[in-house]
Amino acid sequence: MQITRTPAEVRDALRGAGRPVGLVPTMGALHAGHLALVAQARAECRTVVASLFVNPLQFGPGEDFDRYPRAFESDVAALEAGGVDVVYAPDVGTMYPPGFATSVDPGDVGERYEGSLRPGHFRGVATVCVKLFATAGCDRAYFGAKDAQQAAVIQRVIEDLNLPVELIVVPTVREPDGLALSSRNVYLDVEQRAAAPALHRALDAVMRAVTHGETDRDRAVAAGRAELTVPLHEAYLDVVDPQTFVSPERLDAPVLAIASAWLGPTRLIDNVPIEAPAHAPHEIVR
Amino acid sequence: MQITRTPAEVRDALRGAGRPVGLVPTMGALHAGHLALVAQARAECRTVVASLFVNPLQFGPGEDFDRYPRAFESDVAALEAGGVDVVYAPDVGTMYPPGFATSVDPGDVGERYEGSLRPGHFRGVATVCVKLFATAGCDRAYFGAKDAQQAAVIQRVIEDLNLPVELIVVPTVREPDGLALSSRNVYLDVEQRAAAPALHRALDAVMRAVTHGETDRDRAVAAGRAELTVPLHEAYLDVVDPQTFVSPERLDAPVLAIASAWLGPTRLIDNVPIEAPAHAPHEIVR
Repeated sequence: MQITRTPAEVRDALRGAGRPVGLVPTMGALHAGHLALVAQARAECRTVVASLFVNPLQFGPGEDFDRYPRAFESDVAALEAGGVDVVYAPDVGTMYPPGFATSVDPGDVGERYEGSLRPGHFRGVATVCVKLFATAGCDRAYFGAKDAQQAAVIQRVIEDLNLPVELIVVPTVREPDGLALSSRNVYLDVEQRAAAPALHRALDAVMRAVTHGETDRDRAVAAGRAELTVPLHEAYLDVVDPQTFVSPERLDAPVLAIASAWLGPTRLIDNVPIEAPAHAPHEIVR
Repeated sequence: MQITRTPAEVRDALRGAGRPVGLVPTMGALHAGHLALVAQARAECRTVVASLFVNPLQFGPGEDFDRYPRAFESDVAALEAGGVDVVYAPDVGTMYPPGFATSVDPGDVGERYEGSLRPGHFRGVATVCVKLFATAGCDRAYFGAKDAQQAAVIQRVIEDLNLPVELIVVPTVREPDGLALSSRNVYLDVEQRAAAPALHRALDAVMRAVTHGETDRDRAVAAGRAELTVPLHEAYLDVVDPQTFVSPERLDAPVLAIASAWLGPTRLIDNVPIEAPAHAPHEIVR
């Protein structure tokens, strides 16, 4: 496994590499969710590149950029064990040298929910992803389903900019009690950690309501809201179109239940896909 | 020569194409300036792609998108005669399908001069160029020196997004009286056409002032301003850094004289590079 630090080093390392080239973009502090991305890339691609870069552009003022967990040595060991061919770990000055000014804005899908709570976040995500895709010249890029809005943003950007990259979304990895793996889970104290699975239970309740025939969004959401009790404080809980993150009036197509809640200073996110409502209108009329 | 209409057709046409692939992005209504781009691309690249697309994103409200000259048949004939391998001529709905939302913003260099007169113009230019580069998978892209700020914007975007594309800037082609070729020259009536070369004379006057030792920007500009008389009305006349389009206080490095003037409803632009001031401070002290 080769560790590279600059775009030129990445390109040298990948010259003549077997195709497809799969990229796993990460901010490091790797957990089993990241390693599921690596494993799927390894299974599907001749060449696997993983990036380790805590991207300042996607953090707002007062967010946790400075204290975001870093674990370079153990991350590298995990990537090597996962069969990664090339690691790209640039420093901030390499990614954003003096004079850097360009940004990629994904538009509406990046303004809702996470984008509303974190202004500029998805512009930072889109910008760094376009850079990473171009640097690696990758054919596929692997993202976790836990960050569903991020995946929707990247898919929007890939389509809109005609990027020759296929987005692969890998299912969320969860703890046995349902909590989605996240590098930010290390911020939780014992009491918060014990309460955290309620976020997933809320989403499951929304999913059950819809699959049992609830087509009214407000009532479906209310079914989940009952789970979001102190010490959790809801940031949002909703049912949305998984591509646009627009909330439909009637839940009669595949939708996504999304949620975010604060536990002390830490905000967690999660989502559950709802494939096919059982009693959607077009089925009722048959 | 193959004419393609969609990104998929471009990619099919270029599968296994000889490298380097050179792209000449145009808005059609081709003149000898465009054909100089084609000729240089043909001389330097194994495969040459030219695009014909009047990009609505780079026109503001009230600008000349609707009446911008279109000449598809003669453009295609000229590109064929110039040895182009693949023409990409999408319609607007193919370039910007329903749901399209992403934009590429080049930052400060796109806010000055043309960007100030045409808000959003360079965001539209940057967005369509990133799309065209990705669609063609080109190694080189050829732009005219006449649109100097456009070239600076594209260079900024290429560097910032790590795009694997080399920008080639081809010298401006001029009429015998000095007027830079432009698709918009057809808008000029006989009187305006007769007055138009004053724009280039103004730039030449600035260039001569600087090469004769003028290091003060205001005095250098004043030397050119004397040429911009009725029926021309100055939009701007300045000396700038050719990369950033920031105007230096003292003209002691290679700079660019830039100008724009109105002739009736038509606004022309032009520029003249000033390679090395004769009496720049670092030379005076020798």
